[in-house]
Amino acid sequence: MKARLFTPGPTPVPEETLLELAKPVTYHRTAEAKAILGEVTEDLKYVFQTKNTVLTLTSSGTGGMDAAVACASVPGDKAILLTAGRWGERWRGVLKAYGANVINVEVPYGKAVTPQMLDIALRANPDAKIVLSTLSETSTGVGHDIAAFGELVAKTDALLLVDAISGLGAMECRTDDWKIDICVTGSQKALMLPPGLAFVSVSEKAWKVIDATPVRNFYLDLRRYKKSIAESDTPFTPANTLIKAQRVSLKKIRAEGIENLWARHAKMATACRAAIAAMGLELFAERPNNGLTVITVPANIDGSATLKMMEKKYGFKFADGQDNMKGKIWRLSHMGYTDAFDVLGAISALELVLIESGYKMTPGAGVAAFQTSLAKAI
Amino acid sequence: MKARLFTPGPTPVPEETLLELAKPVTYHRTAEAKAILGEVTEDLKYVFQTKNTVLTLTSSGTGGMDAAVACASVPGDKAILLTAGRWGERWRGVLKAYGANVINVEVPYGKAVTPQMLDIALRANPDAKIVLSTLSETSTGVGHDIAAFGELVAKTDALLLVDAISGLGAMECRTDDWKIDICVTGSQKALMLPPGLAFVSVSEKAWKVIDATPVRNFYLDLRRYKKSIAESDTPFTPANTLIKAQRVSLKKIRAEGIENLWARHAKMATACRAAIAAMGLELFAERPNNGLTVITVPANIDGSATLKMMEKKYGFKFADGQDNMKGKIWRLSHMGYTDAFDVLGAISALELVLIESGYKMTPGAGVAAFQTSLAKAI
Repeated sequence: MKARLFTPGPTPVPEETLLELAKPVTYHRTAEAKAILGEVTEDLKYVFQTKNTVLTLTSSGTGGMDAAVACASVPGDKAILLTAGRWGERWRGVLKAYGANVINVEVPYGKAVTPQMLDIALRANPDAKIVLSTLSETSTGVGHDIAAFGELVAKTDALLLVDAISGLGAMECRTDDWKIDICVTGSQKALMLPPGLAFVSVSEKAWKVIDATPVRNFYLDLRRYKKSIAESDTPFTPANTLIKAQRVSLKKIRAEGIENLWARHAKMATACRAAIAAMGLELFAERPNNGLTVITVPANIDGSATLKMMEKKYGFKFADGQDNMKGKIWRLSHMGYTDAFDVLGAISALELVLIESGYKMTPGAGVAAFQTSLAKAI
Repeated sequence: MKARLFTPGPTPVPEETLLELAKPVTYHRTAEAKAILGEVTEDLKYVFQTKNTVLTLTSSGTGGMDAAVACASVPGDKAILLTAGRWGERWRGVLKAYGANVINVEVPYGKAVTPQMLDIALRANPDAKIVLSTLSETSTGVGHDIAAFGELVAKTDALLLVDAISGLGAMECRTDDWKIDICVTGSQKALMLPPGLAFVSVSEKAWKVIDATPVRNFYLDLRRYKKSIAESDTPFTPANTLIKAQRVSLKKIRAEGIENLWARHAKMATACRAAIAAMGLELFAERPNNGLTVITVPANIDGSATLKMMEKKYGFKFADGQDNMKGKIWRLSHMGYTDAFDVLGAISALELVLIESGYKMTPGAGVAAFQTSLAKAI
């Protein structure tokens, strides 16, 4: 049976990228290695849509979030945290560890934080030093209006820190135009690589703050990465096979074009939503993003058992809800090296297990709606 | 031309490990993934020679060193730092970032710190909280007598933190018997994997300190890894393809047996030393370790140009000296997936470029001495 991965990270990796990983290992302090990192950095700037350099850290995405908070704040700094799910809570964990004074702006799972909520929080906390948000709240499927957040934060002295780990490269994210001060992503989502690298862009406004902030870490000190990247190098031994493989995947992104890529993800997300509706299912997120489709498990259906059956019988691996959302939602990723025909198969498999589980629907309703949506987009 | 890697990290990776990296990416929160990490952890315990668990961090080795200092000390803590080169200086950088009160016990490059020096330092600083050393000081080729250091530190309340990044798995290192409290290594040396993972073992004595130390980091907080590893899991998305590939390389180590592996490295190191002497060259390290051979560049030879020629003409990649040692030493690694016949080729290539550079020696003297040493060890 073919195994098909639809989890929102890791995501499928192109075959030629995987083959790059199988090549003999090389030394990382050479002119050739610098040229590769230089190319990767340029391509990342394109994906981030930023003129600023992008730093490459050997860590998971959380390492990048940690670096951002550790370098851009001091204990007691007021931090406005916009939370709509588990990944906002991840920011909270980082903030707590670093002693920030957290102002929580929180909405229930499935809802999105609005620009109005941020506006009120900024007015009530004019001394806030940082504002933290999540581009794609992958635990719920919500996408945030980072452009609007950026407009509001840019009027203040605060910095906007965005966890774009599972959104960047799948949905529109214009780091500079949207005035994101520190933008963090990871390799294992839309960038079509296995996990292991985090990428961080830093605005001039943020560097001013970071350069004036006392050092309180070492391996994740962004200043060290900035100094090294000026020579297309890294301060510590990087996961260099991953960097070489990232180059291959980034070339695919450049060849497609970032706006075409956003449009492709939007098309898949739209078709998924049409399919879900035709199957009588509901989206969980009120402001769904285009990287994944999160479906509310219908009444009388065992959500976790359905996913297990789908994997066992058909080889399709969706993600369950996390923590207290387990069994309540299904998360179907369509990020990165996944196209509409892959997702069509996923809808087919979901239909089959639902029908087998006694769920009442017309066989083919989801697949037909998906196809109709695709046809409309020709 | 065949490319042959003799740098002291990254080192060559077995073909079947590389092929593992080319397999389709899988989700990391599954029973299968836990079973794999469980196996890797057990095999790491064997390599570390410890009964304690071993934590897997997605970072370079420096990330593991950072985690050790951040979690086991507070600002102002007295730290006795045994430095014999660049990697001791790496410890110093970490200690400074975390505000330790560093007591430097330092020897010139090429020399080893002696147990007597540590003994004096411990007596003079009975309030020291941590002692830091380097198993293999790869910048100079020196190996330290960690067993003796461990005996001394164990008599005190201080913890012994050892950077075993480029030694563990190549030279004898018995974490428990030698009373190492925090032992750090990386994937890209003797463990036969590309860079990207750090492994950290922690003694009970160290956990007591860590558990009583205020939190001051997040991504590199060892407490989080301890909690997760109890369920064979990781707190953050791990570089799971590297973990799967590490399993393959660790199985090779188990199949060989750790003491056989130490003996093999010793045999290669001994043969290298014989070859060097026969060529009229000198070892740079006074207490050479078995992971690499560091050779003093002879007078009237351009060290860096020699390495460039060797790479260009014969495809052999040695490492140059770092920073102010550049051009003064040659570093020939024989760690991990490197056998005596590989190293014989390296000696041959070194002979050829030296002869071409006008160095006076009998052609074949090095190779013959290497072979004679091997024959003696049959």
